[in-house]
Amino acid sequence: MRKIVLFVGMSLDGYIARSNGAVDFLSVPKSGGPRNARGEYSMAPFFASVDTAIMGRKTLEAGLKMGGGSLPRTSMVRYVFSRSQPPGERNGLVFVNQTPAALIRQLRKRPGKNIWLMGGGVLARDFLKADLVDELHLGIVPVLLGEGIPLFPSGFPQRDFTLIENKTYSKGLIALRYERRR
Amino acid sequence: MRKIVLFVGMSLDGYIARSNGAVDFLSVPKSGGPRNARGEYSMAPFFASVDTAIMGRKTLEAGLKMGGGSLPRTSMVRYVFSRSQPPGERNGLVFVNQTPAALIRQLRKRPGKNIWLMGGGVLARDFLKADLVDELHLGIVPVLLGEGIPLFPSGFPQRDFTLIENKTYSKGLIALRYERRR
Repeated sequence: MRKIVLFVGMSLDGYIARSNGAVDFLSVPKSGGPRNARGEYSMAPFFASVDTAIMGRKTLEAGLKMGGGSLPRTSMVRYVFSRSQPPGERNGLVFVNQTPAALIRQLRKRPGKNIWLMGGGVLARDFLKADLVDELHLGIVPVLLGEGIPLFPSGFPQRDFTLIENKTYSKGLIALRYERRR
Repeated sequence: MRKIVLFVGMSLDGYIARSNGAVDFLSVPKSGGPRNARGEYSMAPFFASVDTAIMGRKTLEAGLKMGGGSLPRTSMVRYVFSRSQPPGERNGLVFVNQTPAALIRQLRKRPGKNIWLMGGGVLARDFLKADLVDELHLGIVPVLLGEGIPLFPSGFPQRDFTLIENKTYSKGLIALRYERRR
Protein backbone atom coordinates (compact mmCIF):
# COMPACT_ATOMS: atom_id res chain seq x y z
CA MET A 1 0.00 0.00 0.00
CA ARG A 2 1.20 3.50 -0.81
CA LYS A 3 2.60 5.06 2.33
CA ILE A 4 2.02 8.61 3.47
CA VAL A 5 5.32 10.12 4.54
CA LEU A 6 5.61 13.39 6.42
CA PHE A 7 9.03 14.57 5.21
CA VAL A 8 10.20 17.95 6.42
CA GLY A 9 13.06 19.90 7.91
CA MET A 10 12.73 21.66 11.21
CA SER A 11 14.60 23.52 13.91
CA LEU A 12 15.48 21.82 17.17
CA ASP A 13 12.51 23.57 18.75
CA GLY A 14 10.13 22.16 16.15
CA TYR A 15 9.62 25.02 13.68
CA ILE A 16 9.34 24.46 9.92
CA ALA A 17 9.61 28.18 9.17
CA ARG A 18 10.17 31.50 10.86
CA SER A 19 7.05 33.49 11.79
CA ASN A 20 7.34 35.37 8.46
CA GLY A 21 7.55 32.09 6.50
CA ALA A 22 11.32 32.23 5.87
CA VAL A 23 13.17 28.88 5.79
CA ASP A 24 16.72 30.24 5.44
CA PHE A 25 17.81 28.25 8.52
CA LEU A 26 17.19 24.97 6.65
CA SER A 27 20.29 25.09 4.47
CA VAL A 28 20.40 21.63 2.97
CA PRO A 29 21.81 20.77 -0.47
CA LYS A 30 19.01 19.53 -2.70
CA SER A 31 20.93 17.23 -5.07
CA GLY A 32 23.87 14.81 -5.22
CA GLY A 33 24.23 11.19 -4.13
CA PRO A 34 22.54 9.62 -1.12
CA ARG A 35 25.42 10.67 1.08
CA ASN A 36 28.28 12.31 -0.69
CA ALA A 37 31.94 12.65 0.20
CA ARG A 38 31.37 15.60 2.48
CA GLY A 39 28.64 13.82 4.43
CA GLU A 40 26.02 16.14 3.06
CA TYR A 41 22.42 15.19 3.18
CA SER A 42 20.55 14.70 -0.08
CA MET A 43 16.84 14.58 -0.70
CA ALA A 44 17.32 12.61 -3.96
CA PRO A 45 16.60 9.12 -2.55
CA PHE A 46 13.44 10.39 -0.92
CA PHE A 47 12.28 12.10 -4.10
CA ALA A 48 12.75 8.81 -5.98
CA SER A 49 10.35 7.09 -3.56
CA VAL A 50 7.35 9.40 -4.07
CA ASP A 51 5.21 10.47 -7.04
CA THR A 52 2.60 12.59 -5.28
CA ALA A 53 2.89 15.58 -2.96
CA ILE A 54 0.26 17.03 -0.65
CA MET A 55 0.44 20.46 0.92
CA GLY A 56 -1.73 23.01 2.66
CA ARG A 57 -2.65 26.30 1.03
CA LYS A 58 -0.28 28.32 3.23
CA THR A 59 2.63 26.03 2.34
CA LEU A 60 1.79 26.55 -1.35
CA GLU A 61 1.85 30.30 -0.85
CA ALA A 62 5.17 30.14 1.00
CA GLY A 63 6.58 28.02 -1.85
CA LEU A 64 5.34 30.47 -4.48
CA LYS A 65 6.85 33.38 -2.56
CA MET A 66 10.22 31.62 -2.36
CA GLY A 67 10.10 30.75 -6.07
CA GLY A 68 9.18 34.28 -7.17
CA GLY A 69 5.66 33.25 -8.19
CA SER A 70 6.29 29.72 -9.45
CA LEU A 71 7.05 26.33 -7.92
CA PRO A 72 10.02 24.12 -8.86
CA ARG A 73 9.28 21.85 -11.84
CA THR A 74 8.45 18.28 -10.94
CA SER A 75 6.84 15.17 -12.35
CA MET A 76 4.95 14.73 -9.08
CA VAL A 77 1.20 15.21 -8.91
CA ARG A 78 0.64 18.00 -6.39
CA TYR A 79 -2.49 18.35 -4.27
CA VAL A 80 -3.30 21.49 -2.31
CA PHE A 81 -5.80 21.44 0.55
CA SER A 82 -7.71 24.70 0.64
CA ARG A 83 -11.01 25.87 2.05
CA SER A 84 -10.79 29.23 0.29
CA GLN A 85 -9.83 28.11 -3.25
CA PRO A 86 -12.34 26.29 -5.49
CA PRO A 87 -11.44 22.62 -6.08
CA GLY A 88 -10.02 21.54 -9.44
CA GLU A 89 -6.83 21.44 -11.49
CA ARG A 90 -5.04 24.72 -12.20
CA ASN A 91 -1.41 25.62 -13.03
CA GLY A 92 -0.23 22.05 -12.50
CA LEU A 93 -1.84 21.80 -9.06
CA VAL A 94 -4.93 19.95 -7.94
CA PHE A 95 -6.90 21.93 -5.36
CA VAL A 96 -9.04 19.83 -3.03
CA ASN A 97 -11.35 20.61 -0.14
CA GLN A 98 -12.39 17.10 0.87
CA THR A 99 -11.16 15.39 4.05
CA PRO A 100 -7.62 13.96 4.13
CA ALA A 101 -9.15 10.47 4.55
CA ALA A 102 -11.26 10.86 1.40
CA LEU A 103 -8.32 12.02 -0.74
CA ILE A 104 -6.06 9.24 0.55
CA ARG A 105 -8.72 6.59 -0.05
CA GLN A 106 -8.98 7.84 -3.63
CA LEU A 107 -5.17 7.93 -4.16
CA ARG A 108 -4.77 4.42 -2.77
CA LYS A 109 -7.21 3.00 -5.30
CA ARG A 110 -4.56 3.73 -7.93
CA PRO A 111 -1.15 2.02 -7.97
CA GLY A 112 1.77 4.35 -7.39
CA LYS A 113 4.71 5.30 -5.24
CA ASN A 114 4.57 6.77 -1.76
CA ILE A 115 2.85 10.06 -1.02
CA TRP A 116 4.77 13.02 0.36
CA LEU A 117 2.95 15.00 3.00
CA MET A 118 4.84 18.30 2.72
CA GLY A 119 2.99 20.12 5.45
CA GLY A 120 2.51 22.59 6.91
CA GLY A 121 1.71 22.02 10.52
CA VAL A 122 -2.02 22.56 10.27
CA LEU A 123 -2.36 19.95 7.53
CA ALA A 124 0.03 17.59 9.36
CA ARG A 125 -2.24 17.86 12.39
CA ASP A 126 -5.31 17.00 10.28
CA PHE A 127 -3.49 13.93 8.93
CA LEU A 128 -2.34 12.91 12.42
CA LYS A 129 -5.86 13.34 13.77
CA ALA A 130 -7.07 10.94 11.06
CA ASP A 131 -4.07 8.66 11.79
CA LEU A 132 -2.98 8.83 8.17
CA VAL A 133 0.76 9.38 8.71
CA ASP A 134 2.67 6.13 8.09
CA GLU A 135 6.21 7.49 8.29
CA LEU A 136 7.98 10.58 9.60
CA HIS A 137 11.23 11.67 7.93
CA LEU A 138 12.55 14.59 9.92
CA GLY A 139 15.67 16.61 9.27
CA ILE A 140 16.63 18.53 12.40
CA VAL A 141 19.01 21.48 12.17
CA PRO A 142 21.03 22.58 15.22
CA VAL A 143 19.29 25.85 15.98
CA LEU A 144 16.67 27.04 18.42
CA LEU A 145 14.62 29.66 16.59
CA GLY A 146 12.64 30.79 19.63
CA GLU A 147 9.53 31.37 17.55
CA GLY A 148 8.02 30.34 14.22
CA ILE A 149 5.52 28.05 12.54
CA PRO A 150 5.38 24.71 14.38
CA LEU A 151 5.50 21.36 12.59
CA PHE A 152 3.34 19.76 15.27
CA PRO A 153 0.79 22.27 16.55
CA SER A 154 -1.03 20.76 19.52
CA GLY A 155 -4.43 19.12 19.19
CA PHE A 156 -4.20 15.53 18.01
CA PRO A 157 -4.24 12.17 19.85
CA GLN A 158 -1.00 10.43 20.91
CA ARG A 159 0.69 8.54 18.07
CA ASP A 160 3.48 6.06 18.77
CA PHE A 161 6.31 5.46 16.33
CA THR A 162 9.26 3.11 15.86
CA LEU A 163 12.65 4.62 15.03
CA ILE A 164 13.96 3.05 11.83
CA GLU A 165 16.91 5.32 11.04
CA ASN A 166 19.05 7.96 12.75
CA LYS A 167 21.90 9.47 10.74
CA THR A 168 24.19 12.41 11.29
CA TYR A 169 25.20 14.63 8.35
CA SER A 170 27.39 17.65 7.86
CA LYS A 171 26.63 20.90 9.69
CA GLY A 172 25.02 18.97 12.54
CA LEU A 173 21.95 17.98 10.54
CA ILE A 174 20.37 14.79 11.81
CA ALA A 175 17.94 12.77 9.69
CA LEU A 176 15.43 10.62 11.52
CA ARG A 177 13.00 8.10 10.09
CA TYR A 178 10.09 6.75 12.10
CA GLU A 179 7.37 4.27 11.22
CA ARG A 180 3.90 4.45 12.73
CA ARG A 181 3.36 1.69 15.34
CA ARG A 182 -0.32 0.80 15.18
CA MET B 1 34.15 27.49 33.74
CA ARG B 2 31.18 25.53 35.06
CA LYS B 3 28.82 24.83 32.18
CA ILE B 4 25.05 25.09 32.32
CA VAL B 5 23.54 22.01 30.72
CA LEU B 6 19.87 21.72 29.84
CA PHE B 7 19.40 17.95 30.18
CA VAL B 8 15.92 16.63 29.65
CA GLY B 9 13.81 14.00 27.93
CA MET B 10 11.07 14.94 25.55
CA SER B 11 8.59 13.62 23.03
CA LEU B 12 9.23 13.99 19.31
CA ASP B 13 6.84 16.95 19.32
CA GLY B 14 8.82 18.69 22.03
CA TYR B 15 6.89 18.00 25.24
CA ILE B 16 8.59 17.31 28.57
CA ALA B 17 5.33 16.20 30.21
CA ARG B 18 1.68 15.60 29.44
CA SER B 19 -0.71 18.47 30.14
CA ASN B 20 -1.41 16.94 33.58
CA GLY B 21 2.33 16.74 34.38
CA ALA B 22 2.70 12.98 33.78
CA VAL B 23 6.00 11.77 32.34
CA ASP B 24 5.10 8.10 31.89
CA PHE B 25 6.08 8.27 28.20
CA LEU B 26 9.73 8.90 29.18
CA SER B 27 10.52 5.34 30.19
CA VAL B 28 14.28 5.38 30.57
CA PRO B 29 16.25 3.22 33.02
CA LYS B 30 17.93 5.45 35.59
CA SER B 31 21.00 3.36 36.50
CA GLY B 32 23.51 0.91 35.04
CA GLY B 33 26.64 1.44 32.97
CA PRO B 34 27.11 4.16 30.38
CA ARG B 35 25.61 1.91 27.72
CA ASN B 36 24.79 -1.57 28.87
CA ALA B 37 24.45 -4.84 26.98
CA ARG B 38 20.91 -4.12 25.88
CA GLY B 39 21.81 -0.70 24.46
CA GLU B 40 19.86 1.03 27.17
CA TYR B 41 20.46 4.64 27.92
CA SER B 42 21.83 5.56 31.31
CA MET B 43 21.87 8.90 33.05
CA ALA B 44 24.79 7.88 35.28
CA PRO B 45 27.60 9.53 33.26
CA PHE B 46 25.65 12.76 33.15
CA PHE B 47 24.94 12.68 36.89
CA ALA B 48 28.69 12.25 37.51
CA SER B 49 29.36 15.50 35.61
CA VAL B 50 27.12 17.79 37.69
CA ASP B 51 26.89 18.80 41.34
CA THR B 52 24.13 21.40 41.17
CA ALA B 53 20.58 21.28 39.82
CA ILE B 54 18.28 24.16 38.97
CA MET B 55 14.56 23.85 38.45
CA GLY B 56 11.42 25.94 38.29
CA ARG B 57 8.76 25.80 40.96
CA LYS B 58 6.33 23.83 38.79
CA THR B 59 9.00 21.24 38.03
CA LEU B 60 9.62 20.90 41.77
CA GLU B 61 5.91 20.34 42.35
CA ALA B 62 5.72 17.76 39.55
CA GLY B 63 8.74 15.98 41.09
CA LEU B 64 7.17 16.01 44.57
CA LYS B 65 3.92 14.62 43.17
CA MET B 66 5.77 11.78 41.41
CA GLY B 67 7.77 11.00 44.58
CA GLY B 68 4.72 10.98 46.86
CA GLY B 69 5.75 14.21 48.60
CA SER B 70 9.53 13.86 48.55
CA LEU B 71 12.31 14.13 45.99
CA PRO B 72 14.93 11.44 45.27
CA ARG B 73 17.97 11.67 47.58
CA THR B 74 20.98 13.32 46.04
CA SER B 75 24.24 14.96 46.95
CA MET B 76 23.48 17.75 44.47
CA VAL B 77 22.69 21.25 45.65
CA ARG B 78 19.21 22.02 44.32
CA TYR B 79 17.97 25.53 43.51
CA VAL B 80 14.33 26.30 42.85
CA PHE B 81 13.27 29.48 41.06
CA SER B 82 10.02 30.75 42.51
CA ARG B 83 8.20 34.07 42.60
CA SER B 84 5.62 32.78 45.08
CA GLN B 85 7.89 31.07 47.67
CA PRO B 86 10.13 33.12 49.98
CA PRO B 87 13.85 32.74 49.20
CA GLY B 88 16.04 30.64 51.48
CA GLU B 89 17.02 27.06 52.29
CA ARG B 90 14.27 24.61 53.28
CA ASN B 91 13.98 20.80 53.12
CA GLY B 92 17.25 20.42 51.27
CA LEU B 93 16.28 22.96 48.60
CA VAL B 94 17.44 26.53 48.06
CA PHE B 95 14.60 28.75 46.91
CA VAL B 96 15.68 31.79 44.89
CA ASN B 97 13.85 34.66 43.23
CA GLN B 98 16.77 36.52 41.67
CA THR B 99 17.47 36.54 37.92
CA PRO B 100 19.06 33.48 36.31
CA ALA B 101 22.11 35.63 35.45
CA ALA B 102 22.58 36.66 39.08
CA LEU B 103 22.40 33.09 40.40
CA ILE B 104 24.78 31.79 37.74
CA ARG B 105 27.27 34.58 38.41
CA GLN B 106 27.21 33.60 42.07
CA LEU B 107 27.59 29.86 41.35
CA ARG B 108 30.49 30.45 39.01
CA LYS B 109 32.45 32.27 41.69
CA ARG B 110 32.79 28.91 43.43
CA PRO B 111 34.68 25.98 41.88
CA GLY B 112 32.51 22.98 41.05
CA LYS B 113 31.16 20.65 38.43
CA ASN B 114 28.66 21.51 35.74
CA ILE B 115 25.19 22.80 36.53
CA TRP B 116 22.09 20.86 35.50
CA LEU B 117 19.24 22.99 34.24
CA MET B 118 16.35 20.57 34.80
CA GLY B 119 13.61 22.77 33.43
CA GLY B 120 10.78 23.19 32.95
CA GLY B 121 10.12 25.09 29.78
CA VAL B 122 9.41 28.45 31.35
CA LEU B 123 12.72 28.44 33.21
CA ALA B 124 14.54 27.10 30.12
CA ARG B 125 13.16 30.06 28.19
CA ASP B 126 14.41 32.50 30.84
CA PHE B 127 17.88 30.92 30.62
CA LEU B 128 17.81 30.99 26.80
CA LYS B 129 16.73 34.63 26.83
CA ALA B 130 19.76 35.41 29.00
CA ASP B 131 21.91 33.17 26.75
CA LEU B 132 22.98 31.10 29.72
CA VAL B 133 22.57 27.63 28.19
CA ASP B 134 25.99 26.20 27.26
CA GLU B 135 24.90 22.68 26.30
CA LEU B 136 21.70 20.86 25.41
CA HIS B 137 21.44 17.14 26.19
CA LEU B 138 18.16 15.95 24.78
CA GLY B 139 16.68 12.48 24.94
CA ILE B 140 13.95 12.12 22.34
CA VAL B 141 11.41 9.31 22.62
CA PRO B 142 9.54 8.07 19.53
CA VAL B 143 6.09 9.36 20.31
CA LEU B 144 3.99 12.33 19.27
CA LEU B 145 1.95 13.31 22.32
CA GLY B 146 -0.25 15.83 20.50
CA GLU B 147 -0.36 18.09 23.55
CA GLY B 148 1.55 18.76 26.74
CA ILE B 149 4.07 21.03 28.42
CA PRO B 150 6.63 22.26 25.86
CA LEU B 151 10.38 22.20 26.51
CA PHE B 152 10.88 25.27 24.33
CA PRO B 153 7.90 27.61 24.68
CA SER B 154 8.24 30.42 22.14
CA GLY B 155 9.64 33.81 23.06
CA PHE B 156 13.43 33.88 23.06
CA PRO B 157 16.02 35.00 20.47
CA GLN B 158 17.57 32.55 18.01
CA ARG B 159 20.38 30.45 19.50
CA ASP B 160 22.70 28.44 17.27
CA PHE B 161 24.27 25.19 18.41
CA THR B 162 26.86 22.65 17.25
CA LEU B 163 25.95 18.97 17.34
CA ILE B 164 28.54 17.10 19.39
CA GLU B 165 26.87 13.70 19.79
CA ASN B 166 24.00 11.72 18.29
CA LYS B 167 23.43 8.20 19.64
CA THR B 168 20.64 5.69 19.24
CA TYR B 169 19.57 3.55 22.20
CA SER B 170 17.01 0.82 22.80
CA LYS B 171 13.31 1.49 22.28
CA GLY B 172 14.10 4.14 19.68
CA LEU B 173 15.45 6.66 22.17
CA ILE B 174 17.94 9.05 20.66
CA ALA B 175 20.33 11.09 22.77
CA LEU B 176 21.61 14.34 21.31
CA ARG B 177 24.27 16.66 22.68
CA TYR B 178 24.68 20.19 21.41
CA GLU B 179 27.09 22.95 22.38
CA ARG B 180 26.18 26.63 22.17
CA ARG B 181 27.92 28.32 19.20
CA ARG B 182 28.53 31.90 20.27
